[in-house]
Amino acid sequence: MSDIPYKIYLEEKEMPSAWYNVRADMKNKPAPLINPATLKPMGFEELRGVFCDELVKQELDDVTPYFEIPDEIRSFYRMYRPSPLVRAYCLEKELDTPAKIYYKFEGNNTSGSHKLNSAIAQAYYAKKQGLKGVTTETGAGQWGTALSMACAYLGLDCKVYMVKVSYEQKPFRREVMRTYGAAVTPSPSDTTNIGRKILADFPGTTGSLGCAISEAVEAATSTEGYRYVLGSVLSQVLLHQSVIGLECKAAMDKYGIKPDMIIGCAGGGSNLGGLISPFMGEKLRGEADYQFIAVEPASCPSLTRGKFAYDFCDTGNVCPMAKMYTLGSRFIPSPNHAGGLRYHGMSGVVSQLYHDGYLEARAVEQTSVFEAATRFARIEGILPAPESSHAIKVAIDEALKCKETGEEKTILFGLTGTGYFDMVAYEQYNNGTMTDYIPSDEDLQIGFSQIPEVK
Amino acid sequence: MSDIPYKIYLEEKEMPSAWYNVRADMKNKPAPLINPATLKPMGFEELRGVFCDELVKQELDDVTPYFEIPDEIRSFYRMYRPSPLVRAYCLEKELDTPAKIYYKFEGNNTSGSHKLNSAIAQAYYAKKQGLKGVTTETGAGQWGTALSMACAYLGLDCKVYMVKVSYEQKPFRREVMRTYGAAVTPSPSDTTNIGRKILADFPGTTGSLGCAISEAVEAATSTEGYRYVLGSVLSQVLLHQSVIGLECKAAMDKYGIKPDMIIGCAGGGSNLGGLISPFMGEKLRGEADYQFIAVEPASCPSLTRGKFAYDFCDTGNVCPMAKMYTLGSRFIPSPNHAGGLRYHGMSGVVSQLYHDGYLEARAVEQTSVFEAATRFARIEGILPAPESSHAIKVAIDEALKCKETGEEKTILFGLTGTGYFDMVAYEQYNNGTMTDYIPSDEDLQIGFSQIPEVK
Repeated sequence: MSDIPYKIYLEEKEMPSAWYNVRADMKNKPAPLINPATLKPMGFEELRGVFCDELVKQELDDVTPYFEIPDEIRSFYRMYRPSPLVRAYCLEKELDTPAKIYYKFEGNNTSGSHKLNSAIAQAYYAKKQGLKGVTTETGAGQWGTALSMACAYLGLDCKVYMVKVSYEQKPFRREVMRTYGAAVTPSPSDTTNIGRKILADFPGTTGSLGCAISEAVEAATSTEGYRYVLGSVLSQVLLHQSVIGLECKAAMDKYGIKPDMIIGCAGGGSNLGGLISPFMGEKLRGEADYQFIAVEPASCPSLTRGKFAYDFCDTGNVCPMAKMYTLGSRFIPSPNHAGGLRYHGMSGVVSQLYHDGYLEARAVEQTSVFEAATRFARIEGILPAPESSHAIKVAIDEALKCKETGEEKTILFGLTGTGYFDMVAYEQYNNGTMTDYIPSDEDLQIGFSQIPEVK
Repeated sequence: MSDIPYKIYLEEKEMPSAWYNVRADMKNKPAPLINPATLKPMGFEELRGVFCDELVKQELDDVTPYFEIPDEIRSFYRMYRPSPLVRAYCLEKELDTPAKIYYKFEGNNTSGSHKLNSAIAQAYYAKKQGLKGVTTETGAGQWGTALSMACAYLGLDCKVYMVKVSYEQKPFRREVMRTYGAAVTPSPSDTTNIGRKILADFPGTTGSLGCAISEAVEAATSTEGYRYVLGSVLSQVLLHQSVIGLECKAAMDKYGIKPDMIIGCAGGGSNLGGLISPFMGEKLRGEADYQFIAVEPASCPSLTRGKFAYDFCDTGNVCPMAKMYTLGSRFIPSPNHAGGLRYHGMSGVVSQLYHDGYLEARAVEQTSVFEAATRFARIEGILPAPESSHAIKVAIDEALKCKETGEEKTILFGLTGTGYFDMVAYEQYNNGTMTDYIPSDEDLQIGFSQIPEVK
């Protein structure tokens, strides 16, 4: 095994030709999306007013295991994929651990993260349907950037509602999106009914993903030829992101590597769900066993401290409702929280798998995450995104445990992106002014009190 | 040839094991560095007070064609190399050109550019010599970031003097360097004698590379256990950067591709020199012919409008003097100039090759460069650095000429880096407030008048 290269690149012809739908192998399927007015499951006709037709079909299909990736999308993928699977030799040496550490690096594209994998798919289906444009929300800005890139490539209009705190902390993200031709609005804004209502109810709010989603949905459904697209949470997004895990598994199989544990950061669940999908499929089918760990911020702990219940996906309650681990749709994380992973809920797929005991979850605090990020940057070269650094933190913790026990575990984690647009947060860390925030039980109770009772 | 992948990655075992020294094949060698006081060529003993011993040896050696790359440096290279050679299929289609366009992309590392190739080499030799730290200057910030990364990896101190205009336009670059543990000072500063003098002579100056070099050299030579390192211009840097061209040529040879023209941006000449080296070697030895084009900004036109003469390398005249194309060491480009390529001089190797007619030079204006950059970003995905975009501009021009003539030329250009830290400049372009600046002959005369007479 000593001749494993630093970076394993598949050849382009080895790239996956189909996405994998992990729901097909789940005994307990994720609960269906329901209409907030009728509380009845939503079908194709109801959902197609919000989402593109082909994406609704993918969203509703929990039995088909593979969806072919259209040639046009594969062509786009070839511009930045396959992404490297990296053996963290330097980190292993620095930690003096017997563990073998690998990471799948999704940051080598201008959007700076894995988000592009689903952005191009969603933009492609919108274009194919003859739409004029799409709307979306973005938190830290990775998804908005990815969608802007995809839309520029295909010649689609792109309207992005950006969580206000990120809009202000990351002016350069905004300019990247504008360079790709997108229109970017800080959320909450006075351009939508729901935005105006939130501004009236919570003056001075720094925004949240839930709020930006409401505005983007309203903008899409009130404009002819537009649909709404979402960068995480939905099952269709996890489907597209399965390309991460499929490539990763193909690369590992090629070199005879079997991970013992697989670690991913979890905000809405798109990266984690995509990374673990094919491995989880094996586990669900009883073919292999792996330990899966979802890592979330202690300041927004939907898996570790949330409730598993039907809830609104957005602050304005205009979206379909989903059954998921949730902190309540009115939960807004402290503005001292850096980066993404600010969403109050969690992918229905990830939630169900967690509920059924197929994966674990851990919550980690911000300064410890940046400590891990800085350590990683200095020794592995790559300056990681704050989101990705949650996974780094737990990977390092686990590697150090191996040092104590002498176990030679193989650890795989997802390095979802780069932190080049997160330097305000790094500056706080460098200056020693970064703080941690853990909501009290009383804080959480406010969000929980908004979760509706659904039988 | 239709089965050429989008991205050609060499395997790690195919990476070059030695750097190529193009001077060995030059009939007219670059003129030696001379002492500004004695005007005599500087030897090992004189130069070792400023530079590390091993690097002085490389600087002085114009006959040895290959220098073995130490294992430790090759290990570091493996963290981000080999870099991809990309076939710009999408750009070709967009331009509707019969030309085949390739680019060697050096931006897939946290420093964001090719600068890391020489940074790790220079830091390695400093460490090996038992030094405590190094000092340097940085313009747009790419070199300073690269050196910070290399020093963090090896455990060396790193002091960076950053051109003030970039320091102010790019606070996030500063934070990346700090994250890697570097001390960053805006130049001119009051921490050195030369900095204080320049501030007194030119109050309100936004700085220049020439000035920052002087400060860094003073800081190195006045501190025990420190040496000065430089990111461009010197022959040792071109030697290290030959890894770009060597990889590129190996990848092209593997697929039977022969470029007709090779295009690179030129500030100090490190990227251009590194990219063209092995191809130029073939041309010098009469084994093959290629058209080489150096692209520089019209606002800092050292090759196209400068003088070929011995000149000071820095504003404070504390460095060895070099024979090169120069605008005069007191030439300071307009602050409306974005990105790097702000240096008044040019690599002695590139200068001599240009003087002997082995390569052409073109000067391009800033707004046309950003127009090309934005076009490239939207169609090829990668958001390019302003520096790299000079090469993109000319590559597009040449591809469009092929469209007119019907010639199926193969164009290779160097995409040296990404523009993630250049969003202030992109914002100006997006807002339509970017301006061009071409110095008048009178403007240039001021710089020329400072060039000393050296027989």
